[in-house]
Amino acid sequence: MSEIRQLIQRMGRDGRAAAARLAFAATAEKDRALEAVAVALENDRQKIQQENEKDLAAGRERGLSGAMLDRLALTDARIDSMIAGVREVIRLPDPVGGTFDARERPNGLKICRMRVPIGVIGIIYESRPNVTVDAGALTLKSGNAVILRGGSEAINSNLALARAMSAAVAGAGLPSATVQLVPTIDREAVGEMLTAEKYIDLIIPRGGKTLIRRVVENSTIPVIKHYDGICHVYVDAAADLAMATEIALNAKLQRPGVCNAMETLLVSGAVAGEFLPSIGKRLEDAGVEIRGCERTCRLLESAKPATDEDWSTEYLDLILNVRVVDGLDQAVEHIEKYGSRHTDAIVTGNANTAKNFVCRVDSSSVMVNTSTRFSDGAQYGLGAEIGISTDKLHARGPMGLEELTIYKWVVTGEGQLRE
Amino acid sequence: MSEIRQLIQRMGRDGRAAAARLAFAATAEKDRALEAVAVALENDRQKIQQENEKDLAAGRERGLSGAMLDRLALTDARIDSMIAGVREVIRLPDPVGGTFDARERPNGLKICRMRVPIGVIGIIYESRPNVTVDAGALTLKSGNAVILRGGSEAINSNLALARAMSAAVAGAGLPSATVQLVPTIDREAVGEMLTAEKYIDLIIPRGGKTLIRRVVENSTIPVIKHYDGICHVYVDAAADLAMATEIALNAKLQRPGVCNAMETLLVSGAVAGEFLPSIGKRLEDAGVEIRGCERTCRLLESAKPATDEDWSTEYLDLILNVRVVDGLDQAVEHIEKYGSRHTDAIVTGNANTAKNFVCRVDSSSVMVNTSTRFSDGAQYGLGAEIGISTDKLHARGPMGLEELTIYKWVVTGEGQLRE
Repeated sequence: MSEIRQLIQRMGRDGRAAAARLAFAATAEKDRALEAVAVALENDRQKIQQENEKDLAAGRERGLSGAMLDRLALTDARIDSMIAGVREVIRLPDPVGGTFDARERPNGLKICRMRVPIGVIGIIYESRPNVTVDAGALTLKSGNAVILRGGSEAINSNLALARAMSAAVAGAGLPSATVQLVPTIDREAVGEMLTAEKYIDLIIPRGGKTLIRRVVENSTIPVIKHYDGICHVYVDAAADLAMATEIALNAKLQRPGVCNAMETLLVSGAVAGEFLPSIGKRLEDAGVEIRGCERTCRLLESAKPATDEDWSTEYLDLILNVRVVDGLDQAVEHIEKYGSRHTDAIVTGNANTAKNFVCRVDSSSVMVNTSTRFSDGAQYGLGAEIGISTDKLHARGPMGLEELTIYKWVVTGEGQLRE
Repeated sequence: MSEIRQLIQRMGRDGRAAAARLAFAATAEKDRALEAVAVALENDRQKIQQENEKDLAAGRERGLSGAMLDRLALTDARIDSMIAGVREVIRLPDPVGGTFDARERPNGLKICRMRVPIGVIGIIYESRPNVTVDAGALTLKSGNAVILRGGSEAINSNLALARAMSAAVAGAGLPSATVQLVPTIDREAVGEMLTAEKYIDLIIPRGGKTLIRRVVENSTIPVIKHYDGICHVYVDAAADLAMATEIALNAKLQRPGVCNAMETLLVSGAVAGEFLPSIGKRLEDAGVEIRGCERTCRLLESAKPATDEDWSTEYLDLILNVRVVDGLDQAVEHIEKYGSRHTDAIVTGNANTAKNFVCRVDSSSVMVNTSTRFSDGAQYGLGAEIGISTDKLHARGPMGLEELTIYKWVVTGEGQLRE
């Protein structure tokens, strides 16, 4: 057995043992451990930043872009924000242990489902070291053990953070293997994680499409993920056009580089003549490049013709596709064909049309008369978010603490036998 | 592109289109289609049996065992039972369309989760042709399209059943691609299904371990499954031994060949001296071979020593492992080490011990003072069962109609923007 395989299997076994303990840890125990983590991050701040400096120096040497280096940097403000994040998780309700769906069967058996942690969660992510702490805190609070595998460019930072967390958790009386980080940048470790189904119950990849594709293709463990967010706003014939304008601008411009930003604007032909020229001007003023269908290009001089590839591109940038559609049916068809099942919105004053859109658009979040940018765990009141899922299993859309749990059936009898 | 790939992709596209229609089909529409299926199975009975006869003849020629041929046979009674099963599904409540977890955010956004079908479900199974009808009925009622891939030995029977269903569904006004069966026995088709993630949302394999292993290793689509059921009954020091005896006998003998039958009996050392000789006699009388730990072998003359492999074997037969344990901790450790997370039971009169067992045993169903044989969708009141999951994602234990659905987030505003 290769050394890396041995390493991952040892981590897996330790994680499994930690998870068995965490499964019945009291909320107060978990919260004490989280507070110890917050304190440890404060105490180890200097050491963490020294290790982070090593990563930054190596990154500069390797010629990482300014944006990449910025994402990597653990400034004081970022460490403060990680610490605040851990304390926010302490305040969130513990999803574990409650029962639901209770029933009594005709034979007197009492049956219910009990909410329990998933077990051991593997998180595979790229450059931002804050994921180490965010994910560690959320998995701990939900009673799960975590095996973290960060990007090679952040290995020193991640190790410093994970060591601080693990020691703090152990000091608070829970297993140190509650939070583990793979200590090698060898890529073989990812392959070993993805097939360690005996020890890892769920993989959550966070990063670019290439990373996620690789994880899905090689994993024998369930994966929850989203590839990208190609989000649409459909402006219906019955829309309040002033509201539609503000929603579309917010969806595109409030933060263009994130997965719930709008990439394509669909406009009913009934209002395109009035709507497009006015919003086109405002988009142009904001520096947005418009790629349009034929009808759009006739209405907006500055628009370039959109290619078929454009409609299925997640720009994460100041570029917007615009298409004039005949009505709801064509809008729904377009979203079905080119969308990514992430978040899609309709602006309409017609309640029936809204209901139709909500029922027919098969996305993790469907919005009526508001901005796609609200598709977010904190905005939904989940308190925090481990990721967003566009899968159709287990959890869709923003995933908070409850989405890191599952149930088991508990059946209580008085000697009943099956006949 | 190979012909098989073209075939699966065409079926996938048709399934996707059917799912889009089914997602907003009214309950009455789905029930009408199911009634049409029941009538069609009755009307086509002779044709179905003729096709089944072809499979039986081919099976005899290939030297299939009597048990295999029996599983394959579509007797009148089995067709009656399939028809009755479809009508039972009509009577079950429709899980789709309800909303839950509604909340209003401080900014006035109204947020809820709406229960929706998963989409297109791929079912890969072995010999029993009744799965074709059972799975088709459950997926239809839950608003999903299904792509069925049955065993090669049942291909003619399955095609006859699927054709009858598909035509009936179309006659009732829903898409004929609601129920599709892969019409070739070429194994390449399974590989193509498992990587058609654009068209298939979930794979449910039903069959032996080898089949399931192959599916998991090759699928890029989420899989819900169980490998096997190594179910335990733990007789605690505080057990009512008469009750424990009846429960253990029921768990082992009521139907030994199924996944929720007991494979290992764990007995507290405090009561083993009293309990084992008496139950040993009754097990022996019932023809059960006992493989025991050292202490068991000392108490039961007829017991053979159990090997390490025995403890992790799903016999599905009149063989039982018996181990004397020091108490709850060792029982839980044994189940963690050798169990399959399916169903495990404790017999005890001590409520605290029961609670401890329930919290610490990480199985899809945990039972107190009753038989593992109750781990079953119908017994839990789910009405029907598409399978049992020992996974930690989405659904655990028996899966009924609700477990074939997921939710989407619905967000309704009045022009709210993200700041």
